[in-house]
Amino acid sequence: MTRSAIYLDHNASAPLLPEARAAMLAALDLVGNPSSVHGHGRALRNLIETGRDQVARLAGAERKQVVFTGSATEAITQAIVGGAKALKVERIVISAGEHAAVGKAAEATGLPVVVVGLDADGVIRTDEIAVALQQDGIALVAVHAVNNETGVVQPLAKIEALVGPTPHYLFIDAVQALGKLDLDFAARPADMMALSAHKIGGPVGIGALLVKSHADTVRLIPGGGQEQGRRGGTESASLVAGFGAAAEAFAQHYDAALVAKLTFELMYRLRELNGDLVVFGEKAQRVGNVVDFAVPGLKNAVAMMGLDLMGISVSSGSACSSGKVGPSHVLAAMGVAPELSDCALRASLGWNSTEEDVSAFLSGFEQVLDRHRRRQGQAA
Amino acid sequence: MTRSAIYLDHNASAPLLPEARAAMLAALDLVGNPSSVHGHGRALRNLIETGRDQVARLAGAERKQVVFTGSATEAITQAIVGGAKALKVERIVISAGEHAAVGKAAEATGLPVVVVGLDADGVIRTDEIAVALQQDGIALVAVHAVNNETGVVQPLAKIEALVGPTPHYLFIDAVQALGKLDLDFAARPADMMALSAHKIGGPVGIGALLVKSHADTVRLIPGGGQEQGRRGGTESASLVAGFGAAAEAFAQHYDAALVAKLTFELMYRLRELNGDLVVFGEKAQRVGNVVDFAVPGLKNAVAMMGLDLMGISVSSGSACSSGKVGPSHVLAAMGVAPELSDCALRASLGWNSTEEDVSAFLSGFEQVLDRHRRRQGQAA
Repeated sequence: MTRSAIYLDHNASAPLLPEARAAMLAALDLVGNPSSVHGHGRALRNLIETGRDQVARLAGAERKQVVFTGSATEAITQAIVGGAKALKVERIVISAGEHAAVGKAAEATGLPVVVVGLDADGVIRTDEIAVALQQDGIALVAVHAVNNETGVVQPLAKIEALVGPTPHYLFIDAVQALGKLDLDFAARPADMMALSAHKIGGPVGIGALLVKSHADTVRLIPGGGQEQGRRGGTESASLVAGFGAAAEAFAQHYDAALVAKLTFELMYRLRELNGDLVVFGEKAQRVGNVVDFAVPGLKNAVAMMGLDLMGISVSSGSACSSGKVGPSHVLAAMGVAPELSDCALRASLGWNSTEEDVSAFLSGFEQVLDRHRRRQGQAA
Repeated sequence: MTRSAIYLDHNASAPLLPEARAAMLAALDLVGNPSSVHGHGRALRNLIETGRDQVARLAGAERKQVVFTGSATEAITQAIVGGAKALKVERIVISAGEHAAVGKAAEATGLPVVVVGLDADGVIRTDEIAVALQQDGIALVAVHAVNNETGVVQPLAKIEALVGPTPHYLFIDAVQALGKLDLDFAARPADMMALSAHKIGGPVGIGALLVKSHADTVRLIPGGGQEQGRRGGTESASLVAGFGAAAEAFAQHYDAALVAKLTFELMYRLRELNGDLVVFGEKAQRVGNVVDFAVPGLKNAVAMMGLDLMGISVSSGSACSSGKVGPSHVLAAMGVAPELSDCALRASLGWNSTEEDVSAFLSGFEQVLDRHRRRQGQAA
C-alpha cells in the first residue's frame, strides 16, 4: 500500500510504534542465544528480562507471572489446553463472543464446552455463567475482556465475583484490552490472561501468557526449558524488546480521549450519511476506538471492495484467516439477523489515527453509498 | 558485547544475514494483518508466500508442505505430539542424541518412548532402530540429521531404508542440517521435518514444520485457522520474510569449503597446543563447522569463564536454558566418561567466521591452558 493509504483496522493489527521498531533493530544487531552463558548470551538475556518488566508493568503483573509465547493464540491455547490438564478441569465455559482461538482451544481439550450467550448489546450473560458454575466438576471459564469486533467491554468484575470464591478457574483473553483498560493481573482474581504485542504497536510474532503460580499449566511446547521451563524454544530478544518497548511507550502514543473523539465523530457522521445506520453494541460500555456498523442492504463484501480500491482498509470483523469474508459469530450471538450481519463493517482506530483518516474514510464511504443507492435505483 | 568480541557459537544461533535484516525491516514498515482481505493485508500475504517459496526451495519441499511456526521447538512438538495423535502412533522411537525439544515432545505424547543408542563416534545405532521397528504397533521415529554438539551427520538414508517400506512414520529434526546438507524433503521418504531460521542467519522466533499431506498432524495451536488451518496465530510477515531471505542468501554467504578449512585449522592447532586433545565424533562423518573437544582435566566451566572474560564465546554443548553449564547427554550416550564430558567445549563456526576469529580464539585458549597448567603446578 502507498503511504497515503488509510488504515482503520487497528484491531486486526496496530502499526509498529517507533520505540518498538528501534528496540527491535538494536536487538537484531546483537548476536547469540539468550540461553548461552557467555557475554553474547547475557546481553540478549538482559533485553528479555527488561522486556518482561515492561510488559508486566503495563498488565499489572509480577514479572515471574509473564511467559512469552509466539502469539496470543499460543498463550490462549496453552492457558486452556495446558490449564485444563494441569488443573484437572472437567469442562470449559466460554462465551459465544470469543475469538476463534479460544473456541478452538476449548474444543482441543476434548472436554465438554459450555457456551454462554451474549445479550443483544454484545455483553456476556453473567447469569448463564452463574448457572454453568453450579454444575458438578471443576470448570475453566475462558472469556474475553473486550470484544474485537464490537469493542464491547465485558463485565469482568461480575464474572470474577462469580468465579473467584469457587474452586473454578478463570482465564481472560485480554488481547483487545491491553493498554485500554487497567488489567491489574496480579491483584485480580483471574488465574490466567493472554496478551498480544501487535495489538498495541509491538511486533507480530509474540504474545504473553500471564499465569499465577497456583495455576501453572501443562506445557504446550516443553522444549529445552526456556521461560523457566514454561515454554520451550529460543526466545527472540528482538521480539521481546519490541513488545516491551511498545508496552512502555503505548500510553504516550495512544491518546484515548482523542481516539474516542475521532471514533465518535466517525460514527456520528456515518449516521448523517445514512439514517438507517446500525451500530452494534451501541448501548453497551465500549472501548472508544471501534465502530462496528451496518447500512442495511449494503453488503460488507461490496463495501470493502469499494473502499479497498480507494486504498481504505477496514474489516468485516475479525481478520478472517481464510482470506474470505465470513459471517460474524459475535453478531449472530447478539441475535443480529444474517442479512444485517452480512453488512457489518468494523472501523478500528489507534495510536496514529488522524482527523484526515476519518475524513478520507467518510468521503470514500459516501462514494460507496452513492454507488449502492444508484445500483438500487434510488439515486439520491 | 563489543564488535571485537569473538563469536564461535553459530550452532546456538547464527548472526543475522544482511539480506534477512533488510527483508525484515522492509516488512516491519508495512501495516496490517496478513489475513485481512484489504490491500494492507494482501501486501503482507505476498511477503509470506514469497518467504514460503524461498524456504521450500532451500529444503527441497513443495510450498504447500511448509507450515511456519514460532520456533523449531514448536515445529518439533507439533510433529511429534500432533503427529502421534493424528497418525494413531503407539510408540515413539528417538535416539539418545536428540535435542531436548525432541525428548520432551516424545515424553509429552504420553506414549512409550524407545531410546536407541549412539555409537562411540556419535552415530545413531541403526541396528537398534531395526529392532525397535519390529515391535507391535505403529511407531513414530524421530531423529536428527546433524547433531548440534558434535556436528555428526546421521545415517538418514539407512534409517529411511528401514522405516520407509513399513507402516511406521519418520520425523527428521533438520535444524542443524539446513543449508549444510541437501534436505530434499519432497523426494525423500521422511514424513515430517523441522527447520529453524536462526541457525542459518534468519531471525529468532520462527521455524517451520515440513509435512507431507498424508501425515497431516493434529494442530498444536489451532487458533484462527492461519497457515491453511495448520497453525493458528497471526503470521509475522517480518519473520517470514527474514527466514525466506536467509534461505535464499545463505549459500552465497556460507562458503562451506572455507568454513571447513577454518574449522579444521582450529582443530589442528588446538591439538598442537595440547597433545591430549579429544575431539568427539572425530571418526564420524561431520558437517565441517563444529569442533566438540576436550582437554582432559580442564573443566569447561573454567575454560568458558576464562574465554568469556576475553570476549570469546564458545559453548559447552547445547545452549542450556537454565543458564547453567550442564553435562551433555549426547556425550554420555557416546560412552564419554563424566570427567571428560565436563571438559567438553564446542566451537561452531559460520557464515561470517574468519581466520582472525580462529587465531583470537586459539590465543585466548592458549592463555586458558597456561593458567590451567600453572594451577596444576605444571607450568609449561
